[in-house]
Amino acid sequence: MSRQAIVLFAHGARDPEWAAPFIIIKRQLQVARPDAQVELAFQDFMTPTLEAAVAQCAAGGAQRVVLVPLFMAQGGHLKQDLPLLVGKIREQHPQLELRVTPAIGDAPEILQAITDWVIRNAAA
Amino acid sequence: MSRQAIVLFAHGARDPEWAAPFIIIKRQLQVARPDAQVELAFQDFMTPTLEAAVAQCAAGGAQRVVLVPLFMAQGGHLKQDLPLLVGKIREQHPQLELRVTPAIGDAPEILQAITDWVIRNAAA
Repeated sequence: MSRQAIVLFAHGARDPEWAAPFIIIKRQLQVARPDAQVELAFQDFMTPTLEAAVAQCAAGGAQRVVLVPLFMAQGGHLKQDLPLLVGKIREQHPQLELRVTPAIGDAPEILQAITDWVIRNAAA
Repeated sequence: MSRQAIVLFAHGARDPEWAAPFIIIKRQLQVARPDAQVELAFQDFMTPTLEAAVAQCAAGGAQRVVLVPLFMAQGGHLKQDLPLLVGKIREQHPQLELRVTPAIGDAPEILQAITDWVIRNAAA
């Protein structure tokens, strides 16, 4: 099997603490997938950028990259900016098999998990 | 038991489609908790505001309000703005029992659900 990388893509913010939940997800994912290269990239304010993270994956020998937008909702970043950025990255790395998953806010399982959590927390 | 309201609080955006996942969570929650008044409020760009949503709950006869920040990460909105806003709302409605849950990004169960979803989607 060809070597895989997973790039988590988050919005970013000026406050360094902002990244904490995404760093936890990255760690959990790396534990579950020790065979894959797992990177965390940001749209704004934080580094690495998505381009830099994918370049890192290519340098690490990845042949397949799965890009996971950790955005709850579809704003301009996902609808306009991400397709342009992905197009650019494909041109930079034509040898990479690059796949973009739905955003977490478009995943019924995630929305159900959030609903279930709210139900438990609102009742307590 | 006193009447309960649950207010989901999201960031908001200019694009109306942005609210879609939060509207789904609101609906699922209302189905699971038909006894509770469920409202969705926004920090910016969209209405109702948090103040307006809580006023709606009070007008609807709620005695207890659980406020759930649907934010993945702690930015200035949650760390600085929300406590100020909640203080103001408490002054406006001293009769309400108002409780604020952790943000979804601070809930280990949510982060685990996201990790599990990424694992399934990255492998496919």
